[in-house]
Amino acid sequence: MIRVGIIGGAGYTAGELIRLLIGHPDVEICFVNSSSNAGNKITAVHEGLLGDTDLEFTSELPLEEIDVLFFCTAHGDTRKFLESHTLPDGLKVIDLSMDYRIKSNEHDFIYGLPELNRRHTCKSRYVANPGCFATCIELALLPLAKEHLLKGDVSVNAITGSTGAGVKPSASTHFSWRNNNISIYKPFEHQHVPEIMQSIKQLQPDYEGSIDFIPYRGDFPRGIFATVVVKCDTDIETLYKIYEHYYERDSFTHVVPTPLDLKQVVNTNKCLIHLEKHGDKLLITSIIDNLLKGASGQAVHNMNLLFGLAETVGLMLKPSAF
Amino acid sequence: MIRVGIIGGAGYTAGELIRLLIGHPDVEICFVNSSSNAGNKITAVHEGLLGDTDLEFTSELPLEEIDVLFFCTAHGDTRKFLESHTLPDGLKVIDLSMDYRIKSNEHDFIYGLPELNRRHTCKSRYVANPGCFATCIELALLPLAKEHLLKGDVSVNAITGSTGAGVKPSASTHFSWRNNNISIYKPFEHQHVPEIMQSIKQLQPDYEGSIDFIPYRGDFPRGIFATVVVKCDTDIETLYKIYEHYYERDSFTHVVPTPLDLKQVVNTNKCLIHLEKHGDKLLITSIIDNLLKGASGQAVHNMNLLFGLAETVGLMLKPSAF
Amino acid sequence: MIRVGIIGGAGYTAGELIRLLIGHPDVEICFVNSSSNAGNKITAVHEGLLGDTDLEFTSELPLEEIDVLFFCTAHGDTRKFLESHTLPDGLKVIDLSMDYRIKSNEHDFIYGLPELNRRHTCKSRYVANPGCFATCIELALLPLAKEHLLKGDVSVNAITGSTGAGVKPSASTHFSWRNNNISIYKPFEHQHVPEIMQSIKQLQPDYEGSIDFIPYRGDFPRGIFATVVVKCDTDIETLYKIYEHYYERDSFTHVVPTPLDLKQVVNTNKCLIHLEKHGDKLLITSIIDNLLKGASGQAVHNMNLLFGLAETVGLMLKPSAF
Amino acid sequence: MIRVGIIGGAGYTAGELIRLLIGHPDVEICFVNSSSNAGNKITAVHEGLLGDTDLEFTSELPLEEIDVLFFCTAHGDTRKFLESHTLPDGLKVIDLSMDYRIKSNEHDFIYGLPELNRRHTCKSRYVANPGCFATCIELALLPLAKEHLLKGDVSVNAITGSTGAGVKPSASTHFSWRNNNISIYKPFEHQHVPEIMQSIKQLQPDYEGSIDFIPYRGDFPRGIFATVVVKCDTDIETLYKIYEHYYERDSFTHVVPTPLDLKQVVNTNKCLIHLEKHGDKLLITSIIDNLLKGASGQAVHNMNLLFGLAETVGLMLKPSAF
Repeated sequence: MIRVGIIGGAGYTAGELIRLLIGHPDVEICFVNSSSNAGNKITAVHEGLLGDTDLEFTSELPLEEIDVLFFCTAHGDTRKFLESHTLPDGLKVIDLSMDYRIKSNEHDFIYGLPELNRRHTCKSRYVANPGCFATCIELALLPLAKEHLLKGDVSVNAITGSTGAGVKPSASTHFSWRNNNISIYKPFEHQHVPEIMQSIKQLQPDYEGSIDFIPYRGDFPRGIFATVVVKCDTDIETLYKIYEHYYERDSFTHVVPTPLDLKQVVNTNKCLIHLEKHGDKLLITSIIDNLLKGASGQAVHNMNLLFGLAETVGLMLKPSAF
Repeated sequence: MIRVGIIGGAGYTAGELIRLLIGHPDVEICFVNSSSNAGNKITAVHEGLLGDTDLEFTSELPLEEIDVLFFCTAHGDTRKFLESHTLPDGLKVIDLSMDYRIKSNEHDFIYGLPELNRRHTCKSRYVANPGCFATCIELALLPLAKEHLLKGDVSVNAITGSTGAGVKPSASTHFSWRNNNISIYKPFEHQHVPEIMQSIKQLQPDYEGSIDFIPYRGDFPRGIFATVVVKCDTDIETLYKIYEHYYERDSFTHVVPTPLDLKQVVNTNKCLIHLEKHGDKLLITSIIDNLLKGASGQAVHNMNLLFGLAETVGLMLKPSAF
Repeated sequence: MIRVGIIGGAGYTAGELIRLLIGHPDVEICFVNSSSNAGNKITAVHEGLLGDTDLEFTSELPLEEIDVLFFCTAHGDTRKFLESHTLPDGLKVIDLSMDYRIKSNEHDFIYGLPELNRRHTCKSRYVANPGCFATCIELALLPLAKEHLLKGDVSVNAITGSTGAGVKPSASTHFSWRNNNISIYKPFEHQHVPEIMQSIKQLQPDYEGSIDFIPYRGDFPRGIFATVVVKCDTDIETLYKIYEHYYERDSFTHVVPTPLDLKQVVNTNKCLIHLEKHGDKLLITSIIDNLLKGASGQAVHNMNLLFGLAETVGLMLKPSAF
Repeated sequence: MIRVGIIGGAGYTAGELIRLLIGHPDVEICFVNSSSNAGNKITAVHEGLLGDTDLEFTSELPLEEIDVLFFCTAHGDTRKFLESHTLPDGLKVIDLSMDYRIKSNEHDFIYGLPELNRRHTCKSRYVANPGCFATCIELALLPLAKEHLLKGDVSVNAITGSTGAGVKPSASTHFSWRNNNISIYKPFEHQHVPEIMQSIKQLQPDYEGSIDFIPYRGDFPRGIFATVVVKCDTDIETLYKIYEHYYERDSFTHVVPTPLDLKQVVNTNKCLIHLEKHGDKLLITSIIDNLLKGASGQAVHNMNLLFGLAETVGLMLKPSAF
């Protein structure tokens, strides 16, 4: 059994991680650390677990008892933790924050997008789990980048569920406001653009265009639906072959010939991709569940890679569908 | 023109009141007092008014300039205000809080349910605007009470929109939680039961049953849908006559022979009532928009009565329907 | 491997059954019969399965190749089928329609509510899967009935998701109408009342009250939230003991001390029950996912019982939570 | 009083038109023609009108009794009607279908976007009411076109409510499917692109780019939220001046400096427009209510123009806001 600890256990990604790990046959959750909830039952905070677990949050950190530590912390807090603590030898780390996603000489984290860096992750100890928008958009673009077919600016519109905004209530997650409402935020300036650009340039170093990304707040809790438009001279049959070839060994990312709708991936760890050519424009649709493939599902996927398990263990989830 | 002041201008009932008064042909809004928002534009807080008004919130209280003062304050705050301020002679008051709904020798407020107290309200100066659930449930029961037909315990189930919980974000109004979710709160103990009982006993003083009221949190923003079940020997034709007779002079409350759905009243000041007999049980369905008939619409209705206007002025609203 | 056939494969319960069986370790789906969809891919009809299966609908019925046949047919159609076909010896049947839920000398079906008839089901060949509302309401009442504590009329209000109305589009499942809308249907006359009464009388044969059931159409797709009020003199501690004792061997039904919300069970096979006393009234809250515990999950549960598997196999689902 | 007839009275745009006209002080509805609903009450079909009207649908067509005829017909049916009927002299026509939106020598219809053709409409007899997406997108682009500033391809992403798909139930308007779901349809090929292009070229005849329009199906009933991205060298202050100047005489279209959310216009006849520059890209956000500014509200606006009324009569609606 892999012994797991979780830091920052009160947020949405921690809740989803716990829901996944409770059903993972090779995992034992040793502790869920949350300073604000120490002593409370997990079930008092995380929906859906009544009857499944008696776990309680703890303020303790028995790091020597675990094999892997998940950080479900706010951005900045993983770095603070690692700079102020010494980890036991061999303890693996999977960080869901954005602190270590950008490569640097100052850290050893691998950017944990399996479809890009699976082999490196398998041999690694520290994984920076990708952002939700970044995952959805990179998976739409990487096959093009690998063939050096990206050119010009890329137009991206992507709409996300409210769970992407976190558990802390705010004006823009108030039900009265968000229900039946649509809005955008941080257009052209979203914090995931740098990691998207980093992944593209890993495969196509000479790409010089911009990622013109407009993020939408959707009136639903789960999922990201992205449309990506890029100029492209390649014909659609060839493009499908390129994408299918790129993803042929991936368990969770599928290229499909039929138009997509978001609920095809909700409550699954899948990414679905659909391609259409319209004149000289290529339209790529890409969908994920932001809490699973975009966060905790991918984190478990990375854990499976770190420990040499089959990558689908604990991740073949029944879609909610409705 | 009736000159209006509003205290507590940042909440949902104030917003709805402002949206109504901007379209009211006989009203001029003099000030909207909000300590937390002083200096901000009304449009920065209240949805739907961009292009309609340049009003700003103020921290001032020029009470001598107005004819009527609306309190959209938190429960308890109207009382505190009135105990610490002297109102100009003749200034009328409409209080949307629950501070003065229960009759007492210590105040002169009329319980402003027009279908019960219209005549008294017309001659009054102080109006306590009824609660939203109370309005919906009283209108379902008053015709029976008037005929002294209420007997035994009354079973009430009523589901309300999230705007009933106010503008302050909380765990139970977080979109991620509330979307597609149902729950109950304060069963058998809701704070509106005393005013419901007071109104019933105004018409049927010897009623001795209980109002067994289960309030539900609905996954929609606007409206209350109530089902009320009571033992009753009267036949359905007679009951319809009793209800139609009771409401024959009321502009906003209608008894209808077809089953109801909530959106028939959303964004209107109407209450619709439907009756069915099943064996010896009478099922009454009653629906309102909690922000209009259940709050700000009824407050404007009461203002119209206080100033001798036709009661429908400014309240013939286009239903949103969808 | 248990070899499975499904008749009526295009509806919601069939879709959910397929999603469950694809993840069930001991099952192989041999055929999914649908006259209207023969030749189409399962994934073209049932959301959430792209990338998981290449199954196609068939118009054939190779009954000799299977161990168990699920009927996901419209009410009336199972009976028509069984009256016009001879089943191979030993083929087990699980019927999700309401055709055989009421006991009769004319058939051998067991009413498949495991919490009531588990032992009989284990030794049975034909199972009538309970209705969704019936499951939720019976589980709220059976422990009382077992102790012969039910007396007087029972007041039931229960709100269901739109999937309860089936896949065929209609006015009352049109998104434009149903979104943010609430309504009731068949009050006091719902077709599940007879099976509820049958189960109560199986445990408390002298019960003479009525089940006053008001079903609500909810503006969400999945789940049933029921409140049940009954007169009761027993104190709350004793009641909790009675309920906990009744369900102590059940894997999916849990009695919990905290108030409930619907999403605690969505996308799970669980039923959660909460009790409160208010004066001499007992308020029982009971929640299920109508497509799982209320239909296809319970059908798989029954299959597990018929074939001697552990009852939780294939049914420990990750809750969707959001 | 303007005497009005409506053909095709059972659909969503007819319902909204009736809700508007019932509150219009200068209008009398003479007949609402619907072959399928003849003899039924209007209130049996159109939500929100119980208590407001006793009107019934009729199969008759007393054209000589009316001043203006609204066509709320399916696309193609207005043309069929006009080719097979002779209208009384002087009868004005407002067509909400797309049959006469494209200019031609074969008809005399004016394209009824007041912000583009107000003066022509005032002197006209036949008005082709613009499409909903077309209205929202044209209002985002026309000020640029007037200054001949449009260049290159325009990237448009716009999400619409389910009422845009009409009253007839279908798989993609089924609540179970559409709730919390997102999808796209007819990308780059939507039928409104030709009328958008026609309006642009009316102001900037030499524009040669393409309108790359991706329409989204939103999980809400009302409203269109559009983002439009175009290359542009002009600075943002100048752009705001251009837009404000263009719309300075328009009652319903406002340019606002703050970011938008859809519910700011729901249940109003307004269009709100917001501008941002990001590098050399101009991002224009434009929002309308598809049933009002995008259909029936604009039709009433056009009626006001045809009859010389103030353009806002009957159209100063209380926003629903929530």
